Amino acid sequence: MGDQRIGILTSGGDCPGLNAVLHGVVSAAQRRNWEVVGFHEGFEGLLPPGSFEILTAESIRGIMPTGGTFLGTTNKGHFTPRTGWGDRNPSLAAELLQKARETFQTLGLAGLIVVGGDGSLLTALHLSEDGLPIVGVPKTIDNDLEATVITFGFDSAISCVMESLDRLRTTTSSHRRVMVVEVMGRHAGWIALHGGMAGGADAILIPEIPFRAERLAEVVVERTQRGCRGTLIVAAEGAAPRDGRQVRSQTPSGETRLGGIGDWIAREISERTGQECRTCVLGHLQRGGVPTAMDRNLGQHFGVRAVELIEAGDFGKMVSFQNDHTVAVPIAQAVHRLRRVSPGSEFVRTARELSIAFGD
Amino acid sequence: MGDQRIGILTSGGDCPGLNAVLHGVVSAAQRRNWEVVGFHEGFEGLLPPGSFEILTAESIRGIMPTGGTFLGTTNKGHFTPRTGWGDRNPSLAAELLQKARETFQTLGLAGLIVVGGDGSLLTALHLSEDGLPIVGVPKTIDNDLEATVITFGFDSAISCVMESLDRLRTTTSSHRRVMVVEVMGRHAGWIALHGGMAGGADAILIPEIPFRAERLAEVVVERTQRGCRGTLIVAAEGAAPRDGRQVRSQTPSGETRLGGIGDWIAREISERTGQECRTCVLGHLQRGGVPTAMDRNLGQHFGVRAVELIEAGDFGKMVSFQNDHTVAVPIAQAVHRLRRVSPGSEFVRTARELSIAFGD
Amino acid sequence: MGDQRIGILTSGGDCPGLNAVLHGVVSAAQRRNWEVVGFHEGFEGLLPPGSFEILTAESIRGIMPTGGTFLGTTNKGHFTPRTGWGDRNPSLAAELLQKARETFQTLGLAGLIVVGGDGSLLTALHLSEDGLPIVGVPKTIDNDLEATVITFGFDSAISCVMESLDRLRTTTSSHRRVMVVEVMGRHAGWIALHGGMAGGADAILIPEIPFRAERLAEVVVERTQRGCRGTLIVAAEGAAPRDGRQVRSQTPSGETRLGGIGDWIAREISERTGQECRTCVLGHLQRGGVPTAMDRNLGQHFGVRAVELIEAGDFGKMVSFQNDHTVAVPIAQAVHRLRRVSPGSEFVRTARELSIAFGD
Amino acid sequence: MGDQRIGILTSGGDCPGLNAVLHGVVSAAQRRNWEVVGFHEGFEGLLPPGSFEILTAESIRGIMPTGGTFLGTTNKGHFTPRTGWGDRNPSLAAELLQKARETFQTLGLAGLIVVGGDGSLLTALHLSEDGLPIVGVPKTIDNDLEATVITFGFDSAISCVMESLDRLRTTTSSHRRVMVVEVMGRHAGWIALHGGMAGGADAILIPEIPFRAERLAEVVVERTQRGCRGTLIVAAEGAAPRDGRQVRSQTPSGETRLGGIGDWIAREISERTGQECRTCVLGHLQRGGVPTAMDRNLGQHFGVRAVELIEAGDFGKMVSFQNDHTVAVPIAQAVHRLRRVSPGSEFVRTARELSIAFGD
Repeated sequence: MGDQRIGILTSGGDCPGLNAVLHGVVSAAQRRNWEVVGFHEGFEGLLPPGSFEILTAESIRGIMPTGGTFLGTTNKGHFTPRTGWGDRNPSLAAELLQKARETFQTLGLAGLIVVGGDGSLLTALHLSEDGLPIVGVPKTIDNDLEATVITFGFDSAISCVMESLDRLRTTTSSHRRVMVVEVMGRHAGWIALHGGMAGGADAILIPEIPFRAERLAEVVVERTQRGCRGTLIVAAEGAAPRDGRQVRSQTPSGETRLGGIGDWIAREISERTGQECRTCVLGHLQRGGVPTAMDRNLGQHFGVRAVELIEAGDFGKMVSFQNDHTVAVPIAQAVHRLRRVSPGSEFVRTARELSIAFGD
Repeated sequence: MGDQRIGILTSGGDCPGLNAVLHGVVSAAQRRNWEVVGFHEGFEGLLPPGSFEILTAESIRGIMPTGGTFLGTTNKGHFTPRTGWGDRNPSLAAELLQKARETFQTLGLAGLIVVGGDGSLLTALHLSEDGLPIVGVPKTIDNDLEATVITFGFDSAISCVMESLDRLRTTTSSHRRVMVVEVMGRHAGWIALHGGMAGGADAILIPEIPFRAERLAEVVVERTQRGCRGTLIVAAEGAAPRDGRQVRSQTPSGETRLGGIGDWIAREISERTGQECRTCVLGHLQRGGVPTAMDRNLGQHFGVRAVELIEAGDFGKMVSFQNDHTVAVPIAQAVHRLRRVSPGSEFVRTARELSIAFGD
Repeated sequence: MGDQRIGILTSGGDCPGLNAVLHGVVSAAQRRNWEVVGFHEGFEGLLPPGSFEILTAESIRGIMPTGGTFLGTTNKGHFTPRTGWGDRNPSLAAELLQKARETFQTLGLAGLIVVGGDGSLLTALHLSEDGLPIVGVPKTIDNDLEATVITFGFDSAISCVMESLDRLRTTTSSHRRVMVVEVMGRHAGWIALHGGMAGGADAILIPEIPFRAERLAEVVVERTQRGCRGTLIVAAEGAAPRDGRQVRSQTPSGETRLGGIGDWIAREISERTGQECRTCVLGHLQRGGVPTAMDRNLGQHFGVRAVELIEAGDFGKMVSFQNDHTVAVPIAQAVHRLRRVSPGSEFVRTARELSIAFGD
Repeated sequence: MGDQRIGILTSGGDCPGLNAVLHGVVSAAQRRNWEVVGFHEGFEGLLPPGSFEILTAESIRGIMPTGGTFLGTTNKGHFTPRTGWGDRNPSLAAELLQKARETFQTLGLAGLIVVGGDGSLLTALHLSEDGLPIVGVPKTIDNDLEATVITFGFDSAISCVMESLDRLRTTTSSHRRVMVVEVMGRHAGWIALHGGMAGGADAILIPEIPFRAERLAEVVVERTQRGCRGTLIVAAEGAAPRDGRQVRSQTPSGETRLGGIGDWIAREISERTGQECRTCVLGHLQRGGVPTAMDRNLGQHFGVRAVELIEAGDFGKMVSFQNDHTVAVPIAQAVHRLRRVSPGSEFVRTARELSIAFGD
């Protein structure tokens, strides 16, 4: 295979390790004398005349230790469900596909690497099914994609949670306070579970194990009675009480965190126990920062493998990590299947042995 | 001066460097063959029969790199204004003073080191005026005590702000978002100013410079038009709009941060510019964590000096830092005088040269 | 199974995550109302009358975020090969076993958890074969035990290497220098490979792939000619040139690092290329520090599992991690089998795609 | 003053905060509509035809949190004493001055900001005395320039020392070892003193207080007898024993650290006490890494002030920091005067109160 040109884009929420993927892609492409076109702001960059830049070892020098994505990203735009892209608006879908095809032809792309999560991989699948040479790289900071055991970003996120708990532990302990720390995880509790356990949380609330505010209050009281210095509770943003009560009054845009689960829990505990209870919402802190060694290495691996898939002409596939090796799986297999915490899993069992309460 | 026994307590909100003070006190006392009594939970530990433990080099081994306070603290309790302690309730004040005096006599204390902020130093002053041998060490994470140029905790707090901005910068930039980061500082903007400048904030809002939401929105729009990738706004919790509108609907206990200034600003900008705008409230993260080198060194210095003041019988004084040296100033001089950011100061001028907007 | 008493000791070189194991053991034991005896300085603590303390949740409060081991350790002492313990001195071995047995009986230990590496697990095996109720937890910062895919300490070590490379990269780049960073790994190159890749090393030298100084010098020259700003070389301490020349002049005690492989390589490159070449030996920095989230979680898992093995009476086994789960394997299977980097493995292949030179 | 063009160069060893200076200069220049020419590799970039690039807010985006210098630097080259530049070789000096003048004229520079230490400021002084419009910014990671109380880089360096001691403490303590940590400071002990004190060193050796190996060995033995877990000794690279014995066998190039003071001390202690004693040479780790908040703020301040000096036509001056304010002092006053630790200073006295030994 002679000199050629490939493209790459990063789509959806940002995530530590994205720049390591870019580093891997550009390095592997360079060894093959391929040119790499980096599209800006996710799929939006594909719209003619195309918004992109040529990526070289020099232009991306020093990006690996940085968070975010050099190329920019968006979780809005034309290619998202809100435009009706996909099933709901076939004519728009056809139009966007046609535009993407144009950009491929104009630039002479031999392949496009799409780095994205659930939704972005679905878009990638549409492009692929339309005949475009697509290769996927899974991106999910929540680590909730069924098709890969682990992906980059997750380790950095739980490190952020752990470091925050280390910080909050001393103040909680000095004042004998109760603190609720709200972390990412709308549908899966991986970040709360792994981050909370590493940070020595006293209770961890996850979407997969509905909790009872009453039980949680008991845990706090028991700890106080035993003389424990404060209580640290980690709650995934998707954690929910067992009785299904509505705890969140979101604005239509879903952009405000007022009345998030953390505040709700803090209020409940405060009212039930009479103890001072504070909330800390980690929010976007979890998405930024210097990526951990694991995330940089996973990112680089995935980037290199994606180039190899293009070289092999193995399109419509996504890089995945299983049994300590990277493998290629059909993109179709990856989308819309969430990996959730099993309440009976070894990890949850260990957490219970560590006297971590789940509020159930 | 032969072998004797001294006491120490930490009072008020916790602060990185408190354990370094303890380390300094215990080290200097040990060289004099003095015994150190560490009282628990601030002044509360003074109430008979006294809640305390003997501090030795061995018992506090390894505490210097940790946040919080080994002794525990409280910003409630009997000796705070809410009980009417002090001027408002003379009979209670007399009773508490008598109890403290009892503990001094029972334990045979040659001196007591009080590490605390504004309010705690006022209590220390009362005890001192009542004839008890008191020495003060200033503790204010906000760095807003007039009597000392710098004190421990502040550098760790601005490091936390800076690191958080480093984290948020990449995600803000990847998504071209506006982010409002709410930091400590009810009455003085030091943390917002120094932390924001170090973290490369695009705008900094402080209590000393009332801002206009309209002007802030203009800044955001101008930046977008110039092609800047996102805007990072740091707001001290005490920042307030120029028109004095009520921006905060606090609960009576003042403990909830719902409707804090950060959220208010985010809403204002979002409505005025149509751009997505998120809030991140750093809160207690700023009080914890591994203290910086400066805070550990200041803390140790202050602890050693406090012991020397007791040795010299120089009571009613507080350790202070001025012109690169520690000095002793009357406690009376330290309380109730806030050091605030001067809008015309060199630091603000530099910030403006860095194109940091103050929204004025 | 009623209330009982178990023991634990940490042996060999220290390693981040040891305190997490202690945390896991004490937590799981506490739930069973078991008492935990923590022996000091590895196996030495077993010698009558025994040097130990009772571990409780309170006594080990706050140790999880700290490096080292709360119990102390040694890589010397009576139970090491240097005393001829084991095969070489059967009478000494018999005597030591008898002493250990005495301590077991005096204290009424229902089981002993030995946390240690290769050598310590061999000692554990001897004790087990002698009929004592032993359970092993593998500890190898180098990640070179065949019986477990991963163990605690390794991730913290590669994080240290990565952070050091991040630091050195800027100075190397500013001055266009060559820097050789010597890292741990006498027999296996895992730390050099994973840490170097995460830190963006330009060359990685490992024991498993003998290098040629000549080739390394070529890499440096090529990079200079291409305009690269400096070259970062990571060398495992056990890396060796292909021609087998003696590069190290160790003292009998093996304790000095003068003339280590890093210095040798720096001299070779400097002489062959005329370029300034510095060395940095990370040494013990890699063993300390705050353990990463992964290492804390692995440590806690292993500690809990070890208690469960004792509960099940499953002695002579070691906790191990395989296919994302913990399993129990015979200790006999774990000792004396090193897991080394395969030169043809996926990881090495990815590194080559990233243009990392191995000097071969 | 209308639109104009100014230059900046960074010279000598690299130092955290250099990029913050660049950030400050470019920001302040941009507000004045000035163009900034950044010269590469220190003064070398001045040699015709000039090696430089135009610095804009966009081109230096994101550099503030990074170590090193965006512009590159050198501590060799034509303008250093080794070429005889200056007094020793007047004809060379005249030739280089002429070349620099040419570049100034060709580019039409209204001023040049030189960021450098002792030696580089001397070169700047020569250029200034030759009539070129020069402004200086002091750069000394050792904090040993008489003309400024503090400069950027120092706080980052002592943070690195402190963090390294935090790491080494746990391993030293677990194994009850003696560890000698060699840090920067050939002529002044500021880094050893401040970094060692923050990191809880048990002994600190600095050039200003000659030590006795015999006394140091006594300290180690006393600590062992008191049951202390290990001993951490911090030694400035310029520390020297009182009897003036030769401890260092440097190569002519001075580039090897074999036989540095750290190794010498370790050998002495080991021989005198029989205890295991290791060395760790921090070396270049101290120069890199993410700059601290203080260093970023000092750097930005200095950069802004330097632009203001050019604006005011106040050439031949250097920005300096005294009594919490920046001031301008004649460059002539800054060079060749070292600020050293006074053995009788408050800081040393505090260290002694903390039971830190100086070996004297």
